[in-house]
Amino acid sequence: MALLNYKIATIGSHSALQILKGAKDEGFSTIVICLKGREKPYKLYNVADEIITIKNYKEFSKIQDKLIKRKAIIIPHASFIAYIGHDDVEKFKVPYYGNKKILKFESDRNLERKWLKNAGLKLPKIFKNPKDIDRPVIVKFHGAKGGKGYFIAKNEKDFNQKIKHHPEEKDYVIQEYILGVHMYIHYFYSSLTGELEIMGFDKRYESNVDSLGRISARDQMALPASKVDPAYVIVGNMPIVVRESFLPRIIEMGEDVVKESKKITPEGLFGPFCLETIMTPDDEIYVFEISARIVAGTNPYTHGSPYTWLKYDEPMSTGRRIAREIKNAIRRNELNKVLG
Amino acid sequence: MALLNYKIATIGSHSALQILKGAKDEGFSTIVICLKGREKPYKLYNVADEIITIKNYKEFSKIQDKLIKRKAIIIPHASFIAYIGHDDVEKFKVPYYGNKKILKFESDRNLERKWLKNAGLKLPKIFKNPKDIDRPVIVKFHGAKGGKGYFIAKNEKDFNQKIKHHPEEKDYVIQEYILGVHMYIHYFYSSLTGELEIMGFDKRYESNVDSLGRISARDQMALPASKVDPAYVIVGNMPIVVRESFLPRIIEMGEDVVKESKKITPEGLFGPFCLETIMTPDDEIYVFEISARIVAGTNPYTHGSPYTWLKYDEPMSTGRRIAREIKNAIRRNELNKVLG
Amino acid sequence: MALLNYKIATIGSHSALQILKGAKDEGFSTIVICLKGREKPYKLYNVADEIITIKNYKEFSKIQDKLIKRKAIIIPHASFIAYIGHDDVEKFKVPYYGNKKILKFESDRNLERKWLKNAGLKLPKIFKNPKDIDRPVIVKFHGAKGGKGYFIAKNEKDFNQKIKHHPEEKDYVIQEYILGVHMYIHYFYSSLTGELEIMGFDKRYESNVDSLGRISARDQMALPASKVDPAYVIVGNMPIVVRESFLPRIIEMGEDVVKESKKITPEGLFGPFCLETIMTPDDEIYVFEISARIVAGTNPYTHGSPYTWLKYDEPMSTGRRIAREIKNAIRRNELNKVLG
Repeated sequence: MALLNYKIATIGSHSALQILKGAKDEGFSTIVICLKGREKPYKLYNVADEIITIKNYKEFSKIQDKLIKRKAIIIPHASFIAYIGHDDVEKFKVPYYGNKKILKFESDRNLERKWLKNAGLKLPKIFKNPKDIDRPVIVKFHGAKGGKGYFIAKNEKDFNQKIKHHPEEKDYVIQEYILGVHMYIHYFYSSLTGELEIMGFDKRYESNVDSLGRISARDQMALPASKVDPAYVIVGNMPIVVRESFLPRIIEMGEDVVKESKKITPEGLFGPFCLETIMTPDDEIYVFEISARIVAGTNPYTHGSPYTWLKYDEPMSTGRRIAREIKNAIRRNELNKVLG
Repeated sequence: MALLNYKIATIGSHSALQILKGAKDEGFSTIVICLKGREKPYKLYNVADEIITIKNYKEFSKIQDKLIKRKAIIIPHASFIAYIGHDDVEKFKVPYYGNKKILKFESDRNLERKWLKNAGLKLPKIFKNPKDIDRPVIVKFHGAKGGKGYFIAKNEKDFNQKIKHHPEEKDYVIQEYILGVHMYIHYFYSSLTGELEIMGFDKRYESNVDSLGRISARDQMALPASKVDPAYVIVGNMPIVVRESFLPRIIEMGEDVVKESKKITPEGLFGPFCLETIMTPDDEIYVFEISARIVAGTNPYTHGSPYTWLKYDEPMSTGRRIAREIKNAIRRNELNKVLG
Repeated sequence: MALLNYKIATIGSHSALQILKGAKDEGFSTIVICLKGREKPYKLYNVADEIITIKNYKEFSKIQDKLIKRKAIIIPHASFIAYIGHDDVEKFKVPYYGNKKILKFESDRNLERKWLKNAGLKLPKIFKNPKDIDRPVIVKFHGAKGGKGYFIAKNEKDFNQKIKHHPEEKDYVIQEYILGVHMYIHYFYSSLTGELEIMGFDKRYESNVDSLGRISARDQMALPASKVDPAYVIVGNMPIVVRESFLPRIIEMGEDVVKESKKITPEGLFGPFCLETIMTPDDEIYVFEISARIVAGTNPYTHGSPYTWLKYDEPMSTGRRIAREIKNAIRRNELNKVLG
C-alpha cells in the first residue's frame, strides 16, 4: 500500500521492541533513535529498518527535520516523555501519535487526580498536611530517586520522625496506605471507531520490595533497618489475568476515564493507556495513577495477551495495535484523528 | 458439519470467555447468559453469538426451555455452580457437560476428603476438636465471606483466643498449616478415550495476602494488626510451570483421582478438573481441594499453555478442549458419554 | 533432508519436553531415556519417537552403543549432568551437544567465580573466613539437601551461633547478602555464526521461601522458628520480562562471558546458558551463578517467549533453538563446531 511510505519511529527503550515489531507486522518501515551504545537490542531482534544514534537526548530536537523528511510518525512512551520533557514534546514538530494536550493532565498530580475523580474512580486519600493523617499512609517521593525512599507511616508522629531522614526531599505525596494487590490494566481506545479494548494486565516486578517477603520476619527484625528498607524500583513485569467477574467494572472504568478526558481537552484521551490499581479483599479497585500512553507492562505480550487472542486471530501486541490504528487512519484519510 | 447445530452455552463470568472462544474455534455457535449490565466483556471480545440477559440467577430456570429449543449444551464453571446452587443444577433439564453426580462429592467436605484420601493423595490433617491441635493450623471459614478472616493459630490456646473475634462464624475447618508454595494443577480426562492430559498450572493472585510480604516486618509490627490482617480473596491468576521431574507423580495423582471417582459414581469424574496443592521443600505434594470442573486458573491460557503446545499444534485452551470433546462425542454418536 | 537421520536424545527430566518437542519441530526423530516409571510425561505429550527405560542412572553408560548406533546426539541439561556426574559425562562417547570442557569451570566454584569476575561481572562478595564477615551474609550449603538449610546471618557472631545447627555440613559458602530481586537471563550463543541471542527471562518459584511473605510478621514471630525456616527448593518457574533499558547491559554481560570463556578453553562456551542474577534498587546486576547449558527456567516458553517472538515468526523455544543449531551445523557440514 503506497500509503505505507509513512514510517514508525520511537526512542530505543521502554517498549520500543514491541512498537517496532508491531509496526513491521503491519507493513511499516521503522526507525529507532538510540543513545550511542544502546543500539544492540534493536539489532539483535532485527526490528528497526534504520537506527539513528544520538549522543544525548538534547540532540533529539536536531534530528526532527531528518524524521520529518522520512515521513516518520513518533510513538511516545514513558522514557520518551521522561527524556525529552513534557514541554519539549509539546513543541515537537514531527507527527506524534496520541494527544499531546493530555500530557499535562497526566504529569500534574492535581490535574490528574481531578480527572480521575471526576470520572468516578475510587482514589486513595491524599493528606496535604501531616496533621490530618488519621490512618496508615505511604509517603512517595517524586523525581530522580525513582521508587527509592518511600516509607509507610502509621500516624502523624511516625511520619514526622521518618521524614527527618529525607531532609533533601521537598516533593512528596502523603497517600492513604491501601492494603491490597497491584493490578495494572492495559486499555486501548480507538479515536476512529470509539471502541474501547482491554489489551491485558500485568503485575510489576519491583526491587527490592518483591523480594522482601523472602526474608523471614525474624531475620528482618535482626538485620539493621537500613539493610531491609523497601524500595519500589521497577525492573520487570509479569503476565497476569484478572478474575473475569471484575471485567464489566474494569471496562466501565476505562470508558469513564475516556469520557471525562473529552471534557478536559476536545480530542480527549485515545490510543493505549493504563490504570494502575490496587484491588482490595473487599473487591474495591483503587486507582492511584493513570499512564496516558503505552506502558512497559504490555511487554510480556509482544505475541499477544490472553485477552487479545480472544479478539484477534493473530498476535496483537499493544505496539502492533498502535500501528494498525495508524494504518486504519491512513486508509480512512483520517490521520489527523490519531496525531496530536 | 450438520451435527454442529448444537450450541455451547454458559453463564457470563469466571471462565466464560475462553469457553465461548474455544467453542467458536471448534465451530459451534455460542450463547452467553448474563446478568443485566454484565454483557460488555462478551461483546468486546465478540465471543458470543447470542447474549441472553436475566435480572437475577433465579430467572435462570425460566430460560431452560429457550436453551433446550436452541439445542444448547451448558458448560458449568464455579460461578455457575455457586449462582445456581448444587441442588438446582442437579434438577436442571438443559443438556449439561460433565457428571452432575460428582457435584456433591466436591461440595461436601467430608465426602471430598474421603474421595481424595482413598485415591492415595496426601492431605493436610484436619482437627475436628480444638483440643486436638498439636501443631500450627490455619482456620478457614466457609460461605459468604470468601477468603476473609482466615487465621493461623500456633496451638489450642492461640486458637481459642483468635476464634473469639469471629463469634458469628460456625462453619469453619481447622487445618494443619503446611508451609510450602501453592500450585494449581489443571487436568483434563476424556471419557471418550480414557486419556488424561495435563493442561497446565497456575498460581493464584490473592488480595491482600500476596502483597503482605511487600510490607517490611518492622512496618507490619508497627501497624495495627487489623490493618495487616491477611485475606485470601482471589483477584487473578498467574501462569507458571512445574519442575519437570514432578510430572510423573502429578500424572499419577490425576489418574488415581479419576479411578477412585468411578467407585463413588459409575461414570466417574471426566472433563476438566483441578487439584489445588501445596508443594513443600521436602518434595511433598499436599492436596487441599479438588475442583471437579474448569477452574479460572486456566484463564492465562486462552491461547494455549506451555503444556498444551507440546501436544497440539494449535492453540488449545481448556475451554476449547471441552468443545472439542463435545464435537468428538457428537461425531462418535456418544454425546451421552459427556453429558451428565 | 537425508542428514536428519541424526536423532536427538536426552534424559527424561528437567527440560526434556521442550528439547524433544523442539527437535521434532525441526524434523529430527527423538529418543528419551527414562528411569523406569518416569515415562508418562513423554508419552502423554507424544514428544518421543523412542523411549529407552533404564533402572538407574549407572545403567546409562551401558546404552551408549545403542545410542551411537542410532546416530543419537545427546542434549545435556542440569539433571543429566547431576545424574551422570561431571567426570562420567566427560568420558562419554555418544556425540554430545555443547562444550564438555566448560563443565569443570561451571562446577568448581572457584573456577566459575574467576571466569565471571574476569568477564567483568559484578559478583556478591565471598567470605572465606567467618572472621571477615562485615555485612549481612547468606550461608548456602551444597550437595544433597538442595536449597534447604540456607540461613541469613547479620555478623560473625550470628553466623557462629547459627552454623552450630548444621554440624554435619562442611561444604558451604558465606556470601554477601544482596537485597534485590532475582532475574534469570536465558542466552543462546551460536558457535556457527558468532551471534548472541536473548531467549527470555524467568523467576524461580521456590518452596517455601516464595510463600513466606504470605504469613504476617506477627504470625511468623509467634510460630516456632523451625516452622517458618526458609528453604529455597525450586518447584517451578514463572515467565517475566525485564525493563527494556537494561537490555544493552544484559547483552554485553553475555558477550563478555562468552569472550572470556574462549580464554579458558579454546572452543569456549556455546549454545544455551543462563546468568542467575539479583537486580538491586540501585540498578546493579549481581551475578551469583552461571549455568552453562539449558535451564529449566526456559520451560514457560515451549511455544516461544516474548523475546523470541520478536526475532522468529514461528515458536522458538530454547530446546528448538538447539535443534535448529544442530540442523544448521549438519547442513554446513560443521557438526564438529557444536559437539563437544
